[in-house]
Amino acid sequence: MSESLLQQLRKECKLRTPRCLEHFSKVRLSEVPLVNVNQEVEVLFPHLAHQKHQVPEVEQHHLDHPALKIGVVFSGGPAPGGHNVIAGLFHGLKQLNNQNCLIGFLNGPSGILKNESIEIDQQMVLNYFNLGGFDLLGTGRTKIETLDQLSQATEVVEKNQLSGLVIIGGDDSNTNAALLAEHFLSKRVECAVVGVPKTIDGDLQNQEIEISFGFDTATKTFAATIGSILRDAKSQQKYTFFIKVMGRSASHVALECALKTHPNLTFIGEEIEERQLTLNDLVLELAELIEVRAKAGKTYGAILIPEGMIEFIPEIKTLIQEINQLSAKSKRIVNLENFLSAESQKCYAMLPRTIQQQLEMDRDPHGNIQVSKIETERLLIELVQKELEKREATQQTSFKFNPQPIFLGYEGRSCLPSQFDCQYAYVLGLMSALMVEQKTTGCMAVVQKLALDVEEWQPKAVPLISMLHLEKRGAKLRPVIKKALVDLNKRPFKQFAQHRRAWREIDDYQQPGPIQFFGPVTLTDEPPLLLRLRS
Amino acid sequence: MSESLLQQLRKECKLRTPRCLEHFSKVRLSEVPLVNVNQEVEVLFPHLAHQKHQVPEVEQHHLDHPALKIGVVFSGGPAPGGHNVIAGLFHGLKQLNNQNCLIGFLNGPSGILKNESIEIDQQMVLNYFNLGGFDLLGTGRTKIETLDQLSQATEVVEKNQLSGLVIIGGDDSNTNAALLAEHFLSKRVECAVVGVPKTIDGDLQNQEIEISFGFDTATKTFAATIGSILRDAKSQQKYTFFIKVMGRSASHVALECALKTHPNLTFIGEEIEERQLTLNDLVLELAELIEVRAKAGKTYGAILIPEGMIEFIPEIKTLIQEINQLSAKSKRIVNLENFLSAESQKCYAMLPRTIQQQLEMDRDPHGNIQVSKIETERLLIELVQKELEKREATQQTSFKFNPQPIFLGYEGRSCLPSQFDCQYAYVLGLMSALMVEQKTTGCMAVVQKLALDVEEWQPKAVPLISMLHLEKRGAKLRPVIKKALVDLNKRPFKQFAQHRRAWREIDDYQQPGPIQFFGPVTLTDEPPLLLRLRS
Repeated sequence: MSESLLQQLRKECKLRTPRCLEHFSKVRLSEVPLVNVNQEVEVLFPHLAHQKHQVPEVEQHHLDHPALKIGVVFSGGPAPGGHNVIAGLFHGLKQLNNQNCLIGFLNGPSGILKNESIEIDQQMVLNYFNLGGFDLLGTGRTKIETLDQLSQATEVVEKNQLSGLVIIGGDDSNTNAALLAEHFLSKRVECAVVGVPKTIDGDLQNQEIEISFGFDTATKTFAATIGSILRDAKSQQKYTFFIKVMGRSASHVALECALKTHPNLTFIGEEIEERQLTLNDLVLELAELIEVRAKAGKTYGAILIPEGMIEFIPEIKTLIQEINQLSAKSKRIVNLENFLSAESQKCYAMLPRTIQQQLEMDRDPHGNIQVSKIETERLLIELVQKELEKREATQQTSFKFNPQPIFLGYEGRSCLPSQFDCQYAYVLGLMSALMVEQKTTGCMAVVQKLALDVEEWQPKAVPLISMLHLEKRGAKLRPVIKKALVDLNKRPFKQFAQHRRAWREIDDYQQPGPIQFFGPVTLTDEPPLLLRLRS
Repeated sequence: MSESLLQQLRKECKLRTPRCLEHFSKVRLSEVPLVNVNQEVEVLFPHLAHQKHQVPEVEQHHLDHPALKIGVVFSGGPAPGGHNVIAGLFHGLKQLNNQNCLIGFLNGPSGILKNESIEIDQQMVLNYFNLGGFDLLGTGRTKIETLDQLSQATEVVEKNQLSGLVIIGGDDSNTNAALLAEHFLSKRVECAVVGVPKTIDGDLQNQEIEISFGFDTATKTFAATIGSILRDAKSQQKYTFFIKVMGRSASHVALECALKTHPNLTFIGEEIEERQLTLNDLVLELAELIEVRAKAGKTYGAILIPEGMIEFIPEIKTLIQEINQLSAKSKRIVNLENFLSAESQKCYAMLPRTIQQQLEMDRDPHGNIQVSKIETERLLIELVQKELEKREATQQTSFKFNPQPIFLGYEGRSCLPSQFDCQYAYVLGLMSALMVEQKTTGCMAVVQKLALDVEEWQPKAVPLISMLHLEKRGAKLRPVIKKALVDLNKRPFKQFAQHRRAWREIDDYQQPGPIQFFGPVTLTDEPPLLLRLRS
């Protein structure tokens, strides 16, 4: 691939690292007090039970670094920073022992099962340093979870004589990393499995994980666009933009973007569920907003819609569940309506034809509705248009309503990572190198204190099982990492809730502008707002 | 409105200006040899006939600068840089005489007709300096062209005792600026009318206008997103993106973005017309590309689609013309198909239902089809999907085709202007100040040599009538500025044509990244590729 000037400049940009990793080859991971693990989970992971947290500490005496071979893999959708995890891992390994070898499995976890890999060298790392995408290795959504798959992976790991495997992925991929670590231990395979928290959705966070890498860049990218669209709305005073932003299921992305740009209305899925708001409630709220603004002479505006919100609307959630259950029995259902409950029939009837078709047709390989394919922004436009027409007929008021649907998503997954994500991902890579070398298996590489200056950042190895809980998936209880939803009692949401009334009527639009890589550090290295509000 | 850190920093950024404007209060506009004007046009503009070009020159002796009152107005869709035209105009006027007064008409040319204006002061200029949008004044699409409107404008100009009026707009707005200038002269109203070339579409260019302001920022904004999407396509290897970019009617925006990012296929409207390619030809070309790539294991990719392309497809052009003619007779047509020619019936039948509805329903105030509302990206997806299904059935080949429609437009109109556009628009403002002061009426402020360093830029006053030619609009021949189409014989297109075959199969994707405001000047001040290729 050819390169733009900015790509070339980014590759040359030096990164800063935490002080505690300064004398890298002298860093030892030392254990810190026990963590609380769900006891039912512990039963399922007998070999991983009683694990401790580990933090880097500098040793005075010389540490031995035998040569190792390590594997790395991307799992799931791309997130900006992925290449820097590999860069950090590569540089970390080489600093420990120049004979260390890093191989990358191709096209996601299926590359492990098929034993398809490349050796990663100095030049490759340079070619992808600070750049977006997952294209150095490719990615995929195959899961390694069945016994067959676990055995196959074991075979490949042994064949390659791997001492460690670093899995860069989201909640599911990290759950599977725990399964794999447990399996290796049970089979006495000496391969440390390390997870790295990746997702633009921001739903991989908990007491230990402040945020995954990728969230910062994606939200900054979306917020740049949203800010420009808000300014355009105000400049031309003609359009009402319905902007859907990627992010399943939680509304973290929408919340971060809302705090950064101040649209007139932002839906938060978790609040819709909490308040049990129906689709009709939302349509009425929208119509009300649009009408009030129009009366104030403002026939323009912008609404922010989280992709995952649709599943939080109670009657849609029920409808989707019913359809999924029906599909489990038969692939193609003729006259779908007839098989639904009375409530779901009503809900289904309310939907525009295009959305009904999306529910009928678009299924994932498991037969489930692909919620991400439901064009919620267009659904809301159609419904609010009808509502406004109804009001116009009865109230004899009339104003122009020019809606414009917009979807922001793919451009936030593989763009040039922000300086924050470049450094964060790189440190995750460095930490992974320490972990695989020191046989810290079944743990996730984590970095804490991310709202502080890079020098103060605190890397940590956190046992994966401390994040697991049991969830019903299909008929079975399975250990999974819980997707973190927006907490309505915490500061980010509260801050939003405090200001949103004002944002409805006055146009307090803010324009963060495109991600900057040069200029003041306060600008380039700025962590996500969610982190700053939390700290 | 509240402000982001970057907005604050941008407002503080100093701009560079051309050397020839250095001693601003000593600059006189001096005439350069006559231009060729269409003689039929000259007959329509007797008072503007025989105008000359003017360029800035420094006078040794003192120049008198009597205090003036000047008006300014935005016309048409927003373009990044608009606020800087006003800043340049304001600073220029104040440098000439601190008593000079600038008023801004509100919400476009209708603000002139209604005499709605505000006085622009130092603080306002600071508040909007280097920022996007047209929201300091608002904008609108009202035209001042009928005799009634011209008289009304004259009245307002006299009431306000304006010595000059600066109109920031596209081809139509600048045509109307010439009408207004001619009208003022014929009525002995001493108000100089100056046009400023604005449009993100890039179709306001000719021998004198190298490019309008706004084009650079818009194309850089779109190219940043396209580059990221291409990288995402390659990373996940799952989706084929159909990306429509704003820009009526010419394909300059798509061409510039294609040269900057290298998608697998880019349609150029002008080429479609030249080669008389039918909709079916285009669908076959797409299907062919997707199939060839799939056979090479590449079930992903990206297609770039100019918004205006749909009108260049011969049978669609005919269909749209027929429908427009029908609508002229009756607002709502039942059973549209029955009134169409045989050829158009065939074309209409080929279109998906949603597109048929867009043709039937969405009309502008003049009853014309709103071509910009036709979702060409979705139209092509539907048609190519059908074609691929047909091929699958006959050839027994099968591969996954996951199309994703994307539209890029509004985010490019009001975003933070690039440093190039900031400086370009500011110089246009400075030049406008000189022109109104020196009574240079009926001319456009132009800046040439834009591909060189700012210091070398050459401002010029160009008679608007030198850009006019006669075009049939409705039943009448009217003087208009011709929209510049992509010239298939010039270097930008030729460069594209030379490389596109390679871009189809190898993925030579390039990622320009987001607009940068800090860092090396070669990066921040980079002019559009079209200019660099032309020079």
